[in-house]
Amino acid sequence: MSGMGLDLNADAAQLTEDLVNIESVSGDEALIADAIQDALDELPHLAVQRFGNTVVARTELGRPERVVIAGHIDTVPFNDNLPARRDPDGDGFLHGLGSCDMKGGVAIALRLAATMPEPNRDVTFVFYECEEVEAERNGLFRLSLSDPALLEADFAILMEPSDAVVEAGCQGTMRVDVLTRGERAHSARSWKGVNAIHSAAEVLARLNAYEARRPVIDGLEYHEGLNAVFISGGVAGNVLPDECRVSVNFRFAPDRSEEEALAHVREVFAGFEIEVSDSAPAAMPGLTVPAAAAFVEAVGGTVNPKFGWTDVARFSTLGVPAVNFGPGDPHLAHKQEEFVPLAHLATVEQQLRAWLGER
Amino acid sequence: MSGMGLDLNADAAQLTEDLVNIESVSGDEALIADAIQDALDELPHLAVQRFGNTVVARTELGRPERVVIAGHIDTVPFNDNLPARRDPDGDGFLHGLGSCDMKGGVAIALRLAATMPEPNRDVTFVFYECEEVEAERNGLFRLSLSDPALLEADFAILMEPSDAVVEAGCQGTMRVDVLTRGERAHSARSWKGVNAIHSAAEVLARLNAYEARRPVIDGLEYHEGLNAVFISGGVAGNVLPDECRVSVNFRFAPDRSEEEALAHVREVFAGFEIEVSDSAPAAMPGLTVPAAAAFVEAVGGTVNPKFGWTDVARFSTLGVPAVNFGPGDPHLAHKQEEFVPLAHLATVEQQLRAWLGER
Repeated sequence: MSGMGLDLNADAAQLTEDLVNIESVSGDEALIADAIQDALDELPHLAVQRFGNTVVARTELGRPERVVIAGHIDTVPFNDNLPARRDPDGDGFLHGLGSCDMKGGVAIALRLAATMPEPNRDVTFVFYECEEVEAERNGLFRLSLSDPALLEADFAILMEPSDAVVEAGCQGTMRVDVLTRGERAHSARSWKGVNAIHSAAEVLARLNAYEARRPVIDGLEYHEGLNAVFISGGVAGNVLPDECRVSVNFRFAPDRSEEEALAHVREVFAGFEIEVSDSAPAAMPGLTVPAAAAFVEAVGGTVNPKFGWTDVARFSTLGVPAVNFGPGDPHLAHKQEEFVPLAHLATVEQQLRAWLGER
Repeated sequence: MSGMGLDLNADAAQLTEDLVNIESVSGDEALIADAIQDALDELPHLAVQRFGNTVVARTELGRPERVVIAGHIDTVPFNDNLPARRDPDGDGFLHGLGSCDMKGGVAIALRLAATMPEPNRDVTFVFYECEEVEAERNGLFRLSLSDPALLEADFAILMEPSDAVVEAGCQGTMRVDVLTRGERAHSARSWKGVNAIHSAAEVLARLNAYEARRPVIDGLEYHEGLNAVFISGGVAGNVLPDECRVSVNFRFAPDRSEEEALAHVREVFAGFEIEVSDSAPAAMPGLTVPAAAAFVEAVGGTVNPKFGWTDVARFSTLGVPAVNFGPGDPHLAHKQEEFVPLAHLATVEQQLRAWLGER
């Protein structure tokens, strides 16, 4: 063990377990970023920089090609799923908050950074904060604004959970608040006011009636979704509320721009007041770009669509082709029972090692 | 001006204005209770006691009859309606938070306490905290538990706004949380989870479809109501929520017991989980009790039903007949634009003075 305790020479399963046991809910990543920085600082072949709770480590070998390997170090809120439970009953899985999304991928990236001092391509490793919250706080986004040169590359791999196969493109995400208004009155004489919470019934009814599209793009079937993620309203226990706020998250396929997505949401909630709180574009699969196609071929040729929004879209915006490729079932992300298969950790690490020139 | 600034010899309009300008949202009544206690402490004909932010002042004249005159000193939350505006453009009204509910009534009670040292009936004045919040914090309720002897009386008058005519009985009030459950999932793959906020659509639909009863009791028409007063749900901006909570307030007529009211609410929300958070019984009009009938006759004979829950029900429980009688339109209670007519202040004070023996 070195630094604040991370041993990058341990196998990926042990390293994933160590990372899961450093709690790092979005906004609270200082401890895990310190541990990562301390461990990487001991490696003479890497140039390490810190930006907030985002850590960047680069090889500087003068290779003709440079790739980014990136992963976020935050998790969704604790849900009674820590500490890590490693392979209980020999089930072949590591369980716990962040095991799937995405400390397994972070562990593999750290292993590559530590144990491959002379990869065949220069590598920029990025371990970043606040991926699970609003775009403005996202460490990769902030880095793209403050130090875009650090992200220049021929290709990028995001270690998001993708079942150990390449997932291409990503759906966009937009959050809007749908508001209903009423008029306060004493609840004992409710016929004198207008109840804004009752008016939200129609908003929820439209959400229930919504039929999500499943468009096929570049041969990949995407799957949209429109969901309330927060609801709030109320003034006091005996007052008819004059406002109710339904926060809705729209996940949209790569054939819609952000503008088109917003127009669609406005149409769904026609007649209601809308406030946009957050928006990030989708990314087209982009498999026609040679660097992407070459990587896909190197790791086996299988490609699935990516449903979740990932920073693939951010790299697309920067002009860097990018794919998702990491251990873990993306369906388990954000679920209490999330886990990562130990076999995925081994496979993904081995495939990336081969691609980076290990014989 | 005396004490902390309240001059009980000022007219009721001025005194109401002074009370409105001492902000006293429920839980924050220390300042107004201090002002009331300080002013009453200077009056040698009253025995003054303090319980939390509740002030009790009694005449001890040995009269054969004792009456309670009571009013709460808290208000609903600030809604951009302070300071008081007194009779702008000569409209005859005093405007501002608490002017109607119920600092006008409190002002009249303070005037009676200060200026009638020898009423024809012994009087127990009660100025109490936390009427606008859950029953457990209600100052009169707490007093009825800690010092019930202080509330013994032949009759009680609550100075709740009643349009300056007697309002008899009161509706009961019950708050329940109606819960929906789901299963968390990443909002990008929403078909893998169950959205608890979407499930609340049915709860709100039942509220919208609810037809409130208007039963006639002792010749008075009551009017029930079932309303959401709070709604909440949500885990994170990209997570399907696994719980949504709709807090519902049921106002029920005096022909239902609390048990019957709860059974009715359970029936309305059949299939949903229910948690009871607060409950207070209704009070029958009780106009057949001689002391009540005599008071009604003394102040003009008109009686209306009381829709709002008031501590009339608490006195009923203690075996003390009680009515509501105070200045202000109860329909304006808890509304931003609440006001009290200056004419009501004068009428109610004059009628109570006459009833208490002023010639």
